[in-house]
Amino acid sequence: MRKTMIGVMGPGGTATPADRDVAWNLGYLVAQAGWVLLTGGRDEGVMQAASQGAKSGGGLTVGILPDAVGQHLSTAIDIAIFTDMGSARNNINVLSSDVVVICGMGAGTASEAALAIKAGKPIVLLNSDTNSQNFFTHLSQKQTFIADQAEAAIALIRTILETVSK
Amino acid sequence: MRKTMIGVMGPGGTATPADRDVAWNLGYLVAQAGWVLLTGGRDEGVMQAASQGAKSGGGLTVGILPDAVGQHLSTAIDIAIFTDMGSARNNINVLSSDVVVICGMGAGTASEAALAIKAGKPIVLLNSDTNSQNFFTHLSQKQTFIADQAEAAIALIRTILETVSK
Amino acid sequence: MRKTMIGVMGPGGTATPADRDVAWNLGYLVAQAGWVLLTGGRDEGVMQAASQGAKSGGGLTVGILPDAVGQHLSTAIDIAIFTDMGSARNNINVLSSDVVVICGMGAGTASEAALAIKAGKPIVLLNSDTNSQNFFTHLSQKQTFIADQAEAAIALIRTILETVSK
Amino acid sequence: MRKTMIGVMGPGGTATPADRDVAWNLGYLVAQAGWVLLTGGRDEGVMQAASQGAKSGGGLTVGILPDAVGQHLSTAIDIAIFTDMGSARNNINVLSSDVVVICGMGAGTASEAALAIKAGKPIVLLNSDTNSQNFFTHLSQKQTFIADQAEAAIALIRTILETVSK
Repeated sequence: MRKTMIGVMGPGGTATPADRDVAWNLGYLVAQAGWVLLTGGRDEGVMQAASQGAKSGGGLTVGILPDAVGQHLSTAIDIAIFTDMGSARNNINVLSSDVVVICGMGAGTASEAALAIKAGKPIVLLNSDTNSQNFFTHLSQKQTFIADQAEAAIALIRTILETVSK
Repeated sequence: MRKTMIGVMGPGGTATPADRDVAWNLGYLVAQAGWVLLTGGRDEGVMQAASQGAKSGGGLTVGILPDAVGQHLSTAIDIAIFTDMGSARNNINVLSSDVVVICGMGAGTASEAALAIKAGKPIVLLNSDTNSQNFFTHLSQKQTFIADQAEAAIALIRTILETVSK
Repeated sequence: MRKTMIGVMGPGGTATPADRDVAWNLGYLVAQAGWVLLTGGRDEGVMQAASQGAKSGGGLTVGILPDAVGQHLSTAIDIAIFTDMGSARNNINVLSSDVVVICGMGAGTASEAALAIKAGKPIVLLNSDTNSQNFFTHLSQKQTFIADQAEAAIALIRTILETVSK
Repeated sequence: MRKTMIGVMGPGGTATPADRDVAWNLGYLVAQAGWVLLTGGRDEGVMQAASQGAKSGGGLTVGILPDAVGQHLSTAIDIAIFTDMGSARNNINVLSSDVVVICGMGAGTASEAALAIKAGKPIVLLNSDTNSQNFFTHLSQKQTFIADQAEAAIALIRTILETVSK
């Protein structure tokens, strides 16, 4: 039976310390909730921090990589999916997630938030700036949720999953 | 020798009449400038209008479709590339364009603008709202240009192409 | 730390009873060996049988689907990766597998065997006909192995994994 | 109106002189027939030779590249589609071709022939060995055609296109 997967997307090399801190906490809490964590799988930024948090929380981690091989693979990834598709793999990330959490912002991250809305997926903006909140709320008020801490994001995810399963 | 291709991206079924009008004009002027027009290839919205404009302007049109076959193909497309990749094909659209013009806004269109910035491509926002201008300018001030009419977009494209070729 | 993944590829709706039987046994033995099973994830043919065998063997199953959503998803899949890429997802299947086992033959299956060889992956032909053996051995004698039962395939996989890790 | 596109697929760096000669002739004749030539777009092997032949024949050439940028682009390509998808782009090549001609053989080429059959496309084997003829005829007798020279391949393509359009 398919396991619930929570996607956590955010900047790689340009992630801020605050992005990484909240991503670690989120990964930990996703694991503790019994959900599988899905990220972009690389060994940097939000992907790395969320995956490390999830492993500390005793969870299972899936990484969907832009690469063909593992030279940039995070050691905190259990299941590595190598796509060799660069940024086109962003669409796979969102299609495979029940809920997409966006930690911080950048060009690749923005494409994932937009692709998630296009695919009908709910997104939770975490550690987000006002421009991002305005833009994505305007794209879809119904699918866009805003949280200011990892705990609040987890509460939103629970509510979203309960609503979908009814 | 590779021909210069100008990508025109925008909403399909949710395009406004203003989006379609400016897209038609833009397609016409792209063709008159001697550039190849690249769109998502479908028979609706900005894709359809831009392609029809380009054909009226005597140009060549390329459509990169999300589909495997041609049931939604615009009759104004000369070269149809069938990807069967849904929204993942958006990355191909931007990688294959020298400049990406964004007409109007929507979730799929936003992903193309973001993927273009991620890939280092210049984008021109046409018929854009303030939220979009703020968001993409914040993502990359250097790569984001704003135009209010098709003629102004063409002038920006000329300047961008000259700068790149130097 | 990334887990070893064994890909099992084969026909869907056109699989023979013998293809499904050997795929079930192989899935069971892959799980018992402590490896993760990777398949195309659908609820038919070799994918379905191998995934059911792996669950009976107490293993973890990953399915990389051609679809955007789960209407054809096998209930024996734990981790579902939705690509919405049709047959282009076949390349992801082989890139993400340490060894690719080919059970039976068909057009999609042949593309996976060929893409595996292109990507430098070892393939094991199981339940194969003479034409397939001749063709793939001719493409790469070094990467092509032939087994007549699931147990023999497992022994070959062990040898291949040991050789690679040295 | 969509132009008819003939795909010519074959080895890159491992192409034989005979593969390249027949590919050049085929590209020339495709152009003379008024069809657009579609190849993998790189500057080597069958792709390069067929594209050069088509330009000598006064035709239009489309290249669908595995790369994100043009460092390996053939100078004989007019329309370059950059996919950044490695071998996953092979499926786009076959979906976008009305008929797929296979010149020579190799692992990537074999995947294109198999993906073409999977997608319901007719393939013409040119400069092919007995193993390849046996294997693909066995996969689909109905979709597999065999030619020994470029002129014979063109005659087969004409017959196939006439049959499809009826």
